[in-house]
Amino acid sequence: MSISEFQIIERYFKQARPLREDVVLGIGDDAAVLEVPPGRQLVVAMDTLVAGRHFPQQGSAFDIGYKSLAVNLSDLAAMGARPAWATLSLTLPEADERWLEAFAEGFFNLAGQYELDLVGGDTTRGPLSITVQVSGLVKFGRALRRDSARPGQSMFVSGTPGDAAYALRQLQSGEEADPQLLERLNRPQPRVDFGLALAAIGATAVDVLDGLLADLGHVVDASCCGATLWVDRIPRSRRLRGEPADEVLACQLQGGDDYELCFALDAQGVAAARAIAAQQELLITEIGVIEREPGIRCRHDDGSLYKPRGRGYDHFLNDGDG
Amino acid sequence: MSISEFQIIERYFKQARPLREDVVLGIGDDAAVLEVPPGRQLVVAMDTLVAGRHFPQQGSAFDIGYKSLAVNLSDLAAMGARPAWATLSLTLPEADERWLEAFAEGFFNLAGQYELDLVGGDTTRGPLSITVQVSGLVKFGRALRRDSARPGQSMFVSGTPGDAAYALRQLQSGEEADPQLLERLNRPQPRVDFGLALAAIGATAVDVLDGLLADLGHVVDASCCGATLWVDRIPRSRRLRGEPADEVLACQLQGGDDYELCFALDAQGVAAARAIAAQQELLITEIGVIEREPGIRCRHDDGSLYKPRGRGYDHFLNDGDG
Repeated sequence: MSISEFQIIERYFKQARPLREDVVLGIGDDAAVLEVPPGRQLVVAMDTLVAGRHFPQQGSAFDIGYKSLAVNLSDLAAMGARPAWATLSLTLPEADERWLEAFAEGFFNLAGQYELDLVGGDTTRGPLSITVQVSGLVKFGRALRRDSARPGQSMFVSGTPGDAAYALRQLQSGEEADPQLLERLNRPQPRVDFGLALAAIGATAVDVLDGLLADLGHVVDASCCGATLWVDRIPRSRRLRGEPADEVLACQLQGGDDYELCFALDAQGVAAARAIAAQQELLITEIGVIEREPGIRCRHDDGSLYKPRGRGYDHFLNDGDG
Repeated sequence: MSISEFQIIERYFKQARPLREDVVLGIGDDAAVLEVPPGRQLVVAMDTLVAGRHFPQQGSAFDIGYKSLAVNLSDLAAMGARPAWATLSLTLPEADERWLEAFAEGFFNLAGQYELDLVGGDTTRGPLSITVQVSGLVKFGRALRRDSARPGQSMFVSGTPGDAAYALRQLQSGEEADPQLLERLNRPQPRVDFGLALAAIGATAVDVLDGLLADLGHVVDASCCGATLWVDRIPRSRRLRGEPADEVLACQLQGGDDYELCFALDAQGVAAARAIAAQQELLITEIGVIEREPGIRCRHDDGSLYKPRGRGYDHFLNDGDG
């Protein structure tokens, strides 16, 4: 091992200078110093990706770098916050310089799309694992919450859920994965811009990472209400149209890793959201309605109930000794 | 495994309500929403502890919880920032409820001393590892930096460096560790209050976690200067006075895990710092002087040079395949 922790940071993670003027002190001191502008609240999210669980041990370092930030930006999107700063904790079995270079490329590829600065973190040795915290900014009182849905509101989802889960299913069954579905699995686009637009309208929102059913469950539980979900209306990407309907629907409802937004709006909000989605060329689809009665009822278009196999992904319940 | 990720958070990490009024939205949504008061800058630090590296695999869960926060508070202390919020990423091989309970107790034991709220994070399954990010607040422009030392300034250290490293040495050689030294290893007290006082005076500071020599090295490198360090003046705790002088000095210079502050001040600052230290009943000791010539010269009181065995701890250079 010939590269020090200090050199790793200097070579791969310290930008020549911060992109943002609000970074008073970036990487290199005991902590970063940052300025939150007046009239803004701070929004913070933290997520960890563990090798062999969230990505394959031998997965592309670029994709791992990209996704470790994407999963956090998706949280900010669900809050309607504008990304500002990130900190990165990288635990590595060894300091492989080619891996580090590709990881940093993936991370900064996505960071650069949002004028986000990496301002600090930690590098240590151990089983491969990445934790990122992102901080974003939101106008005072305008953050999108998950506990504000009300009966009668329409429920929407962005994009085409199920793509990433279906790609993973193809990989796991030894098939060649469809390249477009694989792109959705490995380089998901967090819906930051649409989240910002929703914050201006006012909505209830979550991002869809644990599966549509589980994440919608979080909304209705937090909002003390329930919902009917029209399963035949969940949009499918073209690549999934020839595939077995049952398996596709399972991926859409319980698959996870979608990086889409699930949101509830009243009638006035719906019109505004549709206009913005059209402008951003983002598909949004009405898939259900918020109701007073607790729980989620999945129905086909003919009104018959659909019984999903399970609710969604939970790290401590969904698998064995992994 | 009968406890879900959601239940882990609800049972062990969600406080009944936030301690702080500036927590608009804490644990339970996609992200937390926080308010930085006017006239304050945000100071953020992130550190990771990995089992088998930063603590023994079978170490006390209380101590691990305590230290995972302490290491971050020590960074805030070195910046002169007042702790405000933390996020916690906990990666666990399994959801052992007794372990979780003790871990949370250790974490909140220290958090409660500083009116700090846990506002979010992530829980996932994998090899045991903890990442904490803390955010603190500092008056505009008053953060303590490491790059502001100037030739002629006096160099101080708080407390008695070497205690934790010596305890670790005792443990590793199979001896029974001295209980007071062990306390310094397992439940270190970050110097938050003294850091706050230094920020009011103005100083250059780092915390001593990688070893006095390495951390002082960070100060002089960042400040483009050097220092003479008087090794015989580094204060020793009573428990180390009977021990072999060479080994004690090695622990003091290269041991690390001290959670003390190393800081540089001009003459006016020295008087103020001494007064505050006396008031806080904290030992501070002048151990050297900042000089124009780069590098650190370690000297005995008779003027002879002392050659240290190495500079300090680096995760990627200091050990084999560990």
